[in-house]
Amino acid sequence: MMRTPEDLLSFTQTALKRVRTDVPLVQCITNSVVVGFTANAMLALGASPAMVDIPREAGAFASIASGVLVNLGTPRAEQREAMLEAAVAANSAGTPWVLDPVAVGAMPVRTPLGFELRDLRPTVVRGNASEVIALSGEGAGGRGVDATDEVEAALPAAQALAAQTGGVVAVSGPVDLVTDGTSVVRVGNGSPLLTQMTGGGCALGAAMAAFASVDDDRLATTVAAITVYTIAAELAADGSAGPGSFAVHFLDALASIDGDTIARRAALS
Amino acid sequence: MMRTPEDLLSFTQTALKRVRTDVPLVQCITNSVVVGFTANAMLALGASPAMVDIPREAGAFASIASGVLVNLGTPRAEQREAMLEAAVAANSAGTPWVLDPVAVGAMPVRTPLGFELRDLRPTVVRGNASEVIALSGEGAGGRGVDATDEVEAALPAAQALAAQTGGVVAVSGPVDLVTDGTSVVRVGNGSPLLTQMTGGGCALGAAMAAFASVDDDRLATTVAAITVYTIAAELAADGSAGPGSFAVHFLDALASIDGDTIARRAALS
Amino acid sequence: MMRTPEDLLSFTQTALKRVRTDVPLVQCITNSVVVGFTANAMLALGASPAMVDIPREAGAFASIASGVLVNLGTPRAEQREAMLEAAVAANSAGTPWVLDPVAVGAMPVRTPLGFELRDLRPTVVRGNASEVIALSGEGAGGRGVDATDEVEAALPAAQALAAQTGGVVAVSGPVDLVTDGTSVVRVGNGSPLLTQMTGGGCALGAAMAAFASVDDDRLATTVAAITVYTIAAELAADGSAGPGSFAVHFLDALASIDGDTIARRAALS
Repeated sequence: MMRTPEDLLSFTQTALKRVRTDVPLVQCITNSVVVGFTANAMLALGASPAMVDIPREAGAFASIASGVLVNLGTPRAEQREAMLEAAVAANSAGTPWVLDPVAVGAMPVRTPLGFELRDLRPTVVRGNASEVIALSGEGAGGRGVDATDEVEAALPAAQALAAQTGGVVAVSGPVDLVTDGTSVVRVGNGSPLLTQMTGGGCALGAAMAAFASVDDDRLATTVAAITVYTIAAELAADGSAGPGSFAVHFLDALASIDGDTIARRAALS
Repeated sequence: MMRTPEDLLSFTQTALKRVRTDVPLVQCITNSVVVGFTANAMLALGASPAMVDIPREAGAFASIASGVLVNLGTPRAEQREAMLEAAVAANSAGTPWVLDPVAVGAMPVRTPLGFELRDLRPTVVRGNASEVIALSGEGAGGRGVDATDEVEAALPAAQALAAQTGGVVAVSGPVDLVTDGTSVVRVGNGSPLLTQMTGGGCALGAAMAAFASVDDDRLATTVAAITVYTIAAELAADGSAGPGSFAVHFLDALASIDGDTIARRAALS
Repeated sequence: MMRTPEDLLSFTQTALKRVRTDVPLVQCITNSVVVGFTANAMLALGASPAMVDIPREAGAFASIASGVLVNLGTPRAEQREAMLEAAVAANSAGTPWVLDPVAVGAMPVRTPLGFELRDLRPTVVRGNASEVIALSGEGAGGRGVDATDEVEAALPAAQALAAQTGGVVAVSGPVDLVTDGTSVVRVGNGSPLLTQMTGGGCALGAAMAAFASVDDDRLATTVAAITVYTIAAELAADGSAGPGSFAVHFLDALASIDGDTIARRAALS
């Protein structure tokens, strides 16, 4: 299997081309805060977003979509039902799906739902350190002295979670970490401005679903999604006066980023 | 009746002034993805948006609104009830209303709702070729070799649908087509960037409701809305580095576009 | 008590620093139109937004949040339940909360809910003149010849409402008015562009919740929130070609505004 940084870089370049050629249909069942931004990020990337998030439509759509995002940010009742429906249908149809367990562990309604979705074996789980630790059932987990340490402290939980789902787990932070339970890849790109814009992490989950549709190597597609997305953030940060202009430039960068830029900037290890 | 391109252009210039003078109150029952952008587009255009989309308020408001948009993009249960309530109330009060049957034909919940709304005779229906064909009940329709051909292939369905509703039908594409069942007008303005920004089509439906409030000639008001909106898109595209900056410039252009610019650019036929 | 313009200015400078240091956790139960923009405004300001708006989570979260916003803009059924839950929990926990009674008085579902929430004694009420008059139960109130006069005409209602809630009431307009029932402060900063961008007023409610978390003097924290927010609007307006670029620059300005700029521009009386 290819796992060297050079191989992953090459894979990322090819995968981005595939996304733009295939225009994958990405179903997003996501929170009300970031739904518009997520659709715009998908369009900028070259994918086709469809926010089909009501019962009786979500399952039917998941079986024809290229990839599905299930994000627990604002899980109203109809969405909760739609999420389960979509996850089951995605599994039946072999559609890759991404679970973003926003605030799982801390909240009484979404926490059991998160576990129920986890047990449906998402292709990819994307969360921050505390969400991944909570979803793995590994307890509160260690807390490092800064956010980077937190990500590394979540590695055992991420590996345990990957073993449970049979999929890939990505932990977001200053350095992102991706594991399939055995291999571990780190992506060191990004910008602090990505955390000052709502949807910075949530739309990345949608990007992971888009990339997962173009190849069965989901460790590599997840790394590719993070690499493209966080390098676009670096490009956007360069010319931005603050978080407002950053969001604008970020969409422009997602639409224009190319393989050469990725090669120059990728910080894979 | 005025139907020459010159007459339609002159009508458009006057209608834009009327929108800015009247500040029509446009009720939008629309999808969660584009609701913020739609409100901003209405404000930029000079209208006053009100997203009143819950049962027991939607009907009451539709009877005092200047125009109503019903968009089926993310039709959760409360919205579905509110849509029917608003359509009935709009009809009783003589309020013009626009139906945007997003993804009707392909989806099990919204498709019967779309037909039910169609039978309430919307003042304007706005959709892409496949939505208009589906809503007309004319079957799958012909598929052209590109999107432009698709729009033209939908003309018989659009005319049949206009005959059913007694209203106007607009088919969106590279060249937009508007018909009242007999007359056909085409608007050739626009930019591909309009399709790389979520809400590009949906907010146009709201603009049609705003323009429909200023004159009873709804073929002409619908053409006017499309013309102003798609020329604003051209102006925005000129200075944009990508879809992020395009969205920003588009709102600026909607707020500043004037009659002279419209005269220079309008591609009516 | 400090109430001179000089004291309020000094308080505002300190409060802004406190917000940025404390990173208050601001729970927003707000409308679907502005929810994304509100989160971005909170992040730009230095606060941490959390849009926890479903029953069984909203109350639990309100008891650990630094401040809560309850905005009635698009009050679907689950949100209405969540609002009451959050208000009760906020009161029990001593969490400051802000009520924005959007369109109360005119709408049949939200009007009784607005009164119910009012009787739970919100820390701050923020509305336009007609909303404040309606919520006070003082009847239709006087209507001035322009919006500025409207704000002044609402002063008796604002004072009566403050007496009812035991809190602070802010009336938005070209000159904003804040009262605790006895003292009255006016903030003359702002830009007309703030009203051409959806969420301009709604996100200010969230800012009031953020500022209310840093000091118990809620007349002063409310004045501070308005002052920072409306001066940021002035800064943003200076370089904007229209409402689209204004929204971008406004977020940039919220993130970069400092005490010196506030001192140069504050129009407190």
